[in-house]
Amino acid sequence: MTAYSELSAHFGRVAALSNAIGILQWDNDAMMPRGASATRSESMALLHVMRHDMTTDPRIGEWLSDAEGDNGLGAWERANVREIRRVFAVETALPADLVAAASRAVSACEMTWRQARADSDFASLLPLLSEVLKIQREIGVAKGERLGLSPYDALLNDYEPGGRSAKIDVLFDDLAAFLPGFLEEALEAQARRPQSAAPEGPFAIEKQRALGVRMMATLGYDFERGRLDVSAHPFCGGADNDVRITTRYDEADFASSLMGVLHETGHALYEQGRPAAYMDQPVGHARGMSLHESQSLLIEMQACRSREFIRYAAPVMREAFGGEGPAWDADALWRQYTRVRPGFIRVDADEVTYPAHVILRYRLEKALIADEMPLSELPSAWNESMQALLGVTPPSDRLGCLQDVHWPSGGWGYFPTYTLGAMTAAQIFDAACRAEPDLLPAIGRGDFGPLVGWLRTNIHSQGSLYQTDELLTRATGRPLDPAVFKAHLRRRYTGE
Amino acid sequence: MTAYSELSAHFGRVAALSNAIGILQWDNDAMMPRGASATRSESMALLHVMRHDMTTDPRIGEWLSDAEGDNGLGAWERANVREIRRVFAVETALPADLVAAASRAVSACEMTWRQARADSDFASLLPLLSEVLKIQREIGVAKGERLGLSPYDALLNDYEPGGRSAKIDVLFDDLAAFLPGFLEEALEAQARRPQSAAPEGPFAIEKQRALGVRMMATLGYDFERGRLDVSAHPFCGGADNDVRITTRYDEADFASSLMGVLHETGHALYEQGRPAAYMDQPVGHARGMSLHESQSLLIEMQACRSREFIRYAAPVMREAFGGEGPAWDADALWRQYTRVRPGFIRVDADEVTYPAHVILRYRLEKALIADEMPLSELPSAWNESMQALLGVTPPSDRLGCLQDVHWPSGGWGYFPTYTLGAMTAAQIFDAACRAEPDLLPAIGRGDFGPLVGWLRTNIHSQGSLYQTDELLTRATGRPLDPAVFKAHLRRRYTGE
Repeated sequence: MTAYSELSAHFGRVAALSNAIGILQWDNDAMMPRGASATRSESMALLHVMRHDMTTDPRIGEWLSDAEGDNGLGAWERANVREIRRVFAVETALPADLVAAASRAVSACEMTWRQARADSDFASLLPLLSEVLKIQREIGVAKGERLGLSPYDALLNDYEPGGRSAKIDVLFDDLAAFLPGFLEEALEAQARRPQSAAPEGPFAIEKQRALGVRMMATLGYDFERGRLDVSAHPFCGGADNDVRITTRYDEADFASSLMGVLHETGHALYEQGRPAAYMDQPVGHARGMSLHESQSLLIEMQACRSREFIRYAAPVMREAFGGEGPAWDADALWRQYTRVRPGFIRVDADEVTYPAHVILRYRLEKALIADEMPLSELPSAWNESMQALLGVTPPSDRLGCLQDVHWPSGGWGYFPTYTLGAMTAAQIFDAACRAEPDLLPAIGRGDFGPLVGWLRTNIHSQGSLYQTDELLTRATGRPLDPAVFKAHLRRRYTGE
Repeated sequence: MTAYSELSAHFGRVAALSNAIGILQWDNDAMMPRGASATRSESMALLHVMRHDMTTDPRIGEWLSDAEGDNGLGAWERANVREIRRVFAVETALPADLVAAASRAVSACEMTWRQARADSDFASLLPLLSEVLKIQREIGVAKGERLGLSPYDALLNDYEPGGRSAKIDVLFDDLAAFLPGFLEEALEAQARRPQSAAPEGPFAIEKQRALGVRMMATLGYDFERGRLDVSAHPFCGGADNDVRITTRYDEADFASSLMGVLHETGHALYEQGRPAAYMDQPVGHARGMSLHESQSLLIEMQACRSREFIRYAAPVMREAFGGEGPAWDADALWRQYTRVRPGFIRVDADEVTYPAHVILRYRLEKALIADEMPLSELPSAWNESMQALLGVTPPSDRLGCLQDVHWPSGGWGYFPTYTLGAMTAAQIFDAACRAEPDLLPAIGRGDFGPLVGWLRTNIHSQGSLYQTDELLTRATGRPLDPAVFKAHLRRRYTGE
């Protein structure tokens, strides 16, 4: 066997283990009974240590050195070697006991978070969240020393390879300067439009589920390789060829679940569309979380909140719930689904205010990882930032700093990818529409073929063959340019 | 650390891995989309090999030698060392590639079996089932050489430690001689009783599920440490502190699902009642599959098909489905739930004909493992045995040799434990009723406290502290005595 084929076989086994972990994590979040928490936590810690052992196997270093000198490799193989080198560098920076401690701390903290959120009780979460933060900081320091990055950038780099906070600071400061004024304009434009009420419920959960499933099928989601379930915090997870999404249902508002399903379906289409020949290899993985989020936001925000889609979807929705009256008109629904209103909850936020939620979290987690702020001050710092950025103050921590699972579950350095993703989504959708003039009209007929076909060719099937900037440049003609996102917002919300 | 504490820590990690495998197997059978089959198969194979590596770690041999000479150990620790010695002997008999091959063969075969059963197409299953059989035979030979057992006994020993086919042959030949005559008597006695129709459906699945959940709670099942779901073949699985059962629903017949739920709840009570202090150690495991099956059959057959239980349950059932009329009377329902009728399907069989289904499978699998019969002859051999033992011939393999998941899933040597379990159940229930005179009257009030309390004390909490015969003798005063089972059948079915 060549060094490359040894590497490839080894990372095939890593994928088999990661797929097991992925399903167990899905189960943890969507199925597991509460009393199994401690037991599951032991299993997850063991499997994470086993994966760490596999990805730090000293033979990988030897195989890599040989494979890096192998001139007979094709472009995909070379890119695979590059990705394996990156994983190996990061993983060998971490001692195994830190990996186990991280897994255990996260399992315990996530379980407590569920109750703490329900009770709006930050104090009950503080000890476990402090432990998670401490471990994440240690991980950031260890990886950062290896990669020559700050601890925060080292954590960010896991989700967004090549991502750097210095660059994000510039983009986010620009957005933070643009958005408050734009928000005011958008709210004024909105006030000038006709007002309409949202359709009135209750909307039976089974009907909501059936509508979600129908829309997933319309988008091209492959149910032979996935499922739709319920969890407290919607996500897309699972394993290779087993891409599972979750939602949560509100009987008073079917759109919140439906839009969530469309969003997660965007993630799932990316996962289901990864290159089959490299599905189990690092080069076959999705390129990074900003690209991933671009795919969910492209589907949800760019495609499915377009006038074209809502014109197609309105009669489907009416049929699903027996809806009648002016609230069910396509124009009225479109106004509902593009309504701008500053609020407390990130996942319920509209496109215009969403970046503020992310910028707030990004700035706070950067400060926490850098140890520039005590964790006990998180609730007050959160509420002050909400007031400054969006002009609202959460009445409780449930609606404030306890709303997201990311920090309890160890996802530090993840938040900025949401807004990078929103900008990327605008840019990719714009390029796709230019390349395929029938794309939006087809969506208006419930035909996602042109859009998803273009995405499969230009994004999904590319895996991690290129770095993010190069992938984006190949697909859209240029690296990330926030002007496209701003132009999209202006067009949709102020009619410019 | 002492050798014993090294062993204990090591097998705690084995448990963490086994718990992961247990949940993934549950997912495989209850949740997984079809297209994930090959991917899952790789994950399961990897985890099985990892577990095999852990349970064959050469350090175990050293720790065992030291621990076996440690006079400071208590009874539980000594029994734990004995159980670890047993596991170590069996596991070190198998090469790792055989473990991986077995896992892969089973995953592929089980998936194909689902379709083959639906299509009643034995030919499509034959190649994969041949592979599974070949590997099981190799496993039996390897373990048998180590333990000084025949290949079949070596396989049986995994499910029923200490179980031997020579002993089972005697018990089963005796039963096979008793049952045909007794079946005739039972059918005659049945013909003399008043006839009544079964309640008429359809019975909505949601209502069936709610009734199942209510009965599980009545029995003392802990929903904080388990779940109820749906699968093609009902089972009890999952992990420590996460004991999940499944059922399947028939809208025309709520009793088939309900009785299945009661049965699996019997298994689950055993699992949930294992000793907490040794939950993750070999000595804390259930004693063997005949004891396990005794707990499910004790709940389903002994307790929940008693007149006392049906008197309590009849109004609950009427309330669940809005049932009215003579078919819903307690006596009529009891006659339905104790009706004897030779049929094709094992899991639908009554108490009287069930042993024939098991004896048939036991004899066939013994012949197949001993290579005394080609697998291609299974359908005809099956049908001939059905005719000989029960006087019926399955019209299709779906109703014949394709009905059970056991062989496709690698469970060879398992079947006899069902009927050993039925005999054990009768003996344990008889002893419990003598020890607790209020036990049956309490069941008539929907109070399972006396029964389950007695089982927890005498069976569940004992884990694998004793060998099967000793556990049974301590609980009931004697080793397995088929006379108690026969007396139970006579009392219930011929009124003697």
